[in-house]
Amino acid sequence: MNIPQLTLMSLPGIPLVQPGDDLAQLIVNSLRSAGLALQEGDVLVVTSKIVSKAEGRLLNLRTITPSARAQDIAAKTGKDPRLVEVILAESTEISRMRMGVLLVRHKLGFTSANAGIDHSNVGPNGEEWVLLLPADPDASAARLRAALFAATGVQVGIVISDTHGRPFRLGNVGVAIGVAGIPALLDLRGQPDLFGRVLQATDIGVADEIATAADLLSGQANEGRPVTLVRGLRLPPTEGRATDLVRPPEMDLYR
Amino acid sequence: MNIPQLTLMSLPGIPLVQPGDDLAQLIVNSLRSAGLALQEGDVLVVTSKIVSKAEGRLLNLRTITPSARAQDIAAKTGKDPRLVEVILAESTEISRMRMGVLLVRHKLGFTSANAGIDHSNVGPNGEEWVLLLPADPDASAARLRAALFAATGVQVGIVISDTHGRPFRLGNVGVAIGVAGIPALLDLRGQPDLFGRVLQATDIGVADEIATAADLLSGQANEGRPVTLVRGLRLPPTEGRATDLVRPPEMDLYR
Repeated sequence: MNIPQLTLMSLPGIPLVQPGDDLAQLIVNSLRSAGLALQEGDVLVVTSKIVSKAEGRLLNLRTITPSARAQDIAAKTGKDPRLVEVILAESTEISRMRMGVLLVRHKLGFTSANAGIDHSNVGPNGEEWVLLLPADPDASAARLRAALFAATGVQVGIVISDTHGRPFRLGNVGVAIGVAGIPALLDLRGQPDLFGRVLQATDIGVADEIATAADLLSGQANEGRPVTLVRGLRLPPTEGRATDLVRPPEMDLYR
Repeated sequence: MNIPQLTLMSLPGIPLVQPGDDLAQLIVNSLRSAGLALQEGDVLVVTSKIVSKAEGRLLNLRTITPSARAQDIAAKTGKDPRLVEVILAESTEISRMRMGVLLVRHKLGFTSANAGIDHSNVGPNGEEWVLLLPADPDASAARLRAALFAATGVQVGIVISDTHGRPFRLGNVGVAIGVAGIPALLDLRGQPDLFGRVLQATDIGVADEIATAADLLSGQANEGRPVTLVRGLRLPPTEGRATDLVRPPEMDLYR
């Protein structure tokens, strides 16, 4: 019996990533050590944290001089003024703020806390280092895809994932901030349903769903499982970008 | 090598569900036909649509007389006034509306379009029937869990799923509207990270993530794959409810 099935595997043995590391090589090494071979249709979900680290997106807060505006926002949110300065530099507007909370529209388009800047888990050298998101995660995904094709001859899909909080709902979930080789948004509108009627307004944030599924393996393990292989997806052969998932502000009733 | 792995399978041969159907029996029949046996730690994700159908949550719009308020909102949103009447009866407040869009806070707590009422895919009898969400999906999940334990001797987790649109992002994704036997929200705060530092404010909407992962199999197949078996999750032995995932209004900056 042919049972539709999806398998997710954490790639083993990915070391702590350092600036300049070659992620494609680390992934190829891991696959080899696990006796796994990439297949057409596979999607690799890579946490933004290791992409950022490989790309050297670290910033030393000691080098930052906060502006008057950053100091004002820091006072209102209880955050480090230097961190606020970096958040503002990474974003285009403040979405909401209050004590303990600073939600911004990131330059990449999405809305999230602290512009996705991580300072809980960067390295052993203390609290002064922060990690920015990759500068262009769609481009990072495309480069990784090309490097893996060069190394293996297989065209895989790539999702670079982050986790975001959400309005209305508690708990972070995985989201896609970089996509290559697969659609990001599946538009099912116009397709007939089981009864032959045409579906209305059903589009699926499929790259977000893939990132979320992978977070079930990677999310509770901190940095220990940064790459997830997803096998069994049957996606149409269109290619999207994570920016396809960003709701245009004029279509956002909660802006 | 022990590779952390997650497997999702669409249970085959679930028939179109009718009011009064015994979902536990349909699931047991499917498992038997597929040669599958439930295991401790398995989670079954069931679409709210078949739960609603089994529970007879159908309403004939021809029996509905819209109030003046429903007629007013229908004019502003371009929706059927009888449908608006039903949406208002299922919700506690209007969150946002404009032409084509009616976002409400459902009686169950979450915020979504049209109070989750489905009229695209209900049955062959035409557009007058609408399907409401289960009246108490957490209770539906608990009943299904108990019935499956009675039939198989195995305690599984249950997630009743729906799909929601989102502020900021395009594309629907799976969410959990009913949970039994597993945590809904994983609170990782206070746990040490790889470097021994304590994580801040990291909680995971794990039941939503499970619903989202299952939607990768069920979401593109309309009603053809309404039950997904998720195997390989290693969740703590706490039990939550989908209502744990609802952000209290006073904590919601986008209300």
